Amino acid sequence: MIGVVGATGLVGKTMLQVLAGRQNVIAFAPDRHQGEVVEGREVRPLSSLDGRELDACLFAVGADVSEALAPRLVREGCVVVDNSSRWRQDPEVPLVVPEVNPEDIGWHKGIVANPNCSTIQAVVALSALRGYGIEGVLYHTYQAVSGAGKGGIADLERGTATTLPHPIRDNVIPMIDLLGEDGYSKEEIKMRKETRKILHAPTLPVAATCVRVPVHNGHTVAITVRLAATPTVEEVREALSTKTIVSDAPSNGVYPMPLLATGRDEVLVGRVRQDPDDRHVYHLVTVADNLRKGAASNAVQILDLLVKNGLLHE
Amino acid sequence: MIGVVGATGLVGKTMLQVLAGRQNVIAFAPDRHQGEVVEGREVRPLSSLDGRELDACLFAVGADVSEALAPRLVREGCVVVDNSSRWRQDPEVPLVVPEVNPEDIGWHKGIVANPNCSTIQAVVALSALRGYGIEGVLYHTYQAVSGAGKGGIADLERGTATTLPHPIRDNVIPMIDLLGEDGYSKEEIKMRKETRKILHAPTLPVAATCVRVPVHNGHTVAITVRLAATPTVEEVREALSTKTIVSDAPSNGVYPMPLLATGRDEVLVGRVRQDPDDRHVYHLVTVADNLRKGAASNAVQILDLLVKNGLLHE
Repeated sequence: MIGVVGATGLVGKTMLQVLAGRQNVIAFAPDRHQGEVVEGREVRPLSSLDGRELDACLFAVGADVSEALAPRLVREGCVVVDNSSRWRQDPEVPLVVPEVNPEDIGWHKGIVANPNCSTIQAVVALSALRGYGIEGVLYHTYQAVSGAGKGGIADLERGTATTLPHPIRDNVIPMIDLLGEDGYSKEEIKMRKETRKILHAPTLPVAATCVRVPVHNGHTVAITVRLAATPTVEEVREALSTKTIVSDAPSNGVYPMPLLATGRDEVLVGRVRQDPDDRHVYHLVTVADNLRKGAASNAVQILDLLVKNGLLHE
Repeated sequence: MIGVVGATGLVGKTMLQVLAGRQNVIAFAPDRHQGEVVEGREVRPLSSLDGRELDACLFAVGADVSEALAPRLVREGCVVVDNSSRWRQDPEVPLVVPEVNPEDIGWHKGIVANPNCSTIQAVVALSALRGYGIEGVLYHTYQAVSGAGKGGIADLERGTATTLPHPIRDNVIPMIDLLGEDGYSKEEIKMRKETRKILHAPTLPVAATCVRVPVHNGHTVAITVRLAATPTVEEVREALSTKTIVSDAPSNGVYPMPLLATGRDEVLVGRVRQDPDDRHVYHLVTVADNLRKGAASNAVQILDLLVKNGLLHE
């Protein structure tokens, strides 16, 4: 059996959507949600969660809850695929995007971490360019409010600033998550550290500027990447097409947009340009559904990879 | 007398707001607007425009109308401050941001060009860092719909895509203006060429990614700048404070946002960070009212500079 923990949140609900039709799924949420039905499944209380009854659990809860629950579930024999930031930098925990580093799943010790929503789509695109030698990465994000959960959506719809630090309606907030070190936000630091870990490039130069925009769903990431080689733009598109949907015909109005990405599991890529002054530098834009590929679908893909590789009991 | 040409458009109307209280202002607009009153001034028909009756004219019209009217007005003895892209790259026409290159106003031959809305705020911030040696610039913009005029605002409010190429409500459009060369949009090319011209740095590496976001007013520009020197972040803030309002205390929720910039003439700057891998590279975020400092206020500042330097008849 597969558990989905945090089923009433945006990511948990999306996990249940992605798992629709599967028989072996049980939804869990804090006890106050008992009796609720999400995506056709009755929610069981978190207090009844028992790792001995589950082969794997997809966690869509905060870092604190994950820290409190995951180790016990692992001891009980259940593999945890965790969407929080709690375990991502733990050297004992693989951080996996199935299109990028599926091999890392092999050394899991009970927990597999699901990366940050903006990072996932970015590394899918970057991984397609590894053959050209990635020497440096710069991210600028345009992140949707669904990345801040139901509270983020409520803030956009009501014009409030209850979950977000300022009103997001008719505004741009150049700060996501709390302040970390050296003036960087924790979100920006996550993008740096997680990119390095997923790409197995512990010293790769990576810097991010993470910004919230008034969009319900679908994160946009503008990526500047320095390559050792100098492929043509057409060669870069060709390489990207092995892992993403290339939407890049701007004269016909074709480029990635949140409007096109919502509800899909693929990463859309476009606006591929070579830097006019440095032929080793390329600029491109990715968009993905942050609730699906940025969270729920990636977690389910990790689950399926665990099953396929015989790393679960089922 | 001072004429405002295109008084019924968003920028023209804002010019009249900035000029409120001045006696010597006449508003002009296409003949179909005859009889309309904008900011308390009755609009005169464009067909009655006569350069012999005007000392200077602020143009808030498209490039085609500017091309058709400006040379005649100049021959008639009127100085034209033009907000369109038509004359910006003309070597005979200075492109002026008064805080940055006021000296260029001296060699005007009748037309002074007002730069692109995103470029103005960016070069104000960059000019404050010239002492450290600017070696390269990367822009990522988050541009409001008012930059596309009344049609852009209508698209946001109605959910249509009449002026903009796609619906902007609940969306991000990573393409502004038409496609130019090498995959870059004309807006991106403007930011490159205008930055070089204003900063007197004809070979400075500058690349931009220009993106429309669902915000009524207030452009955000994330700037990555490479400096010859390696000042501390505090020194960079200090330098920026000579030309901008530094809003940079992210742990207290203080950073530039469109919500704070609308209605102001200053450029707000914050999120100043040194790159974690390259100590010569700095990341920062600027926000300004694109209708005011990005267009109307800058044009009025140019006008006032012309007057102050005795470059008009009045």
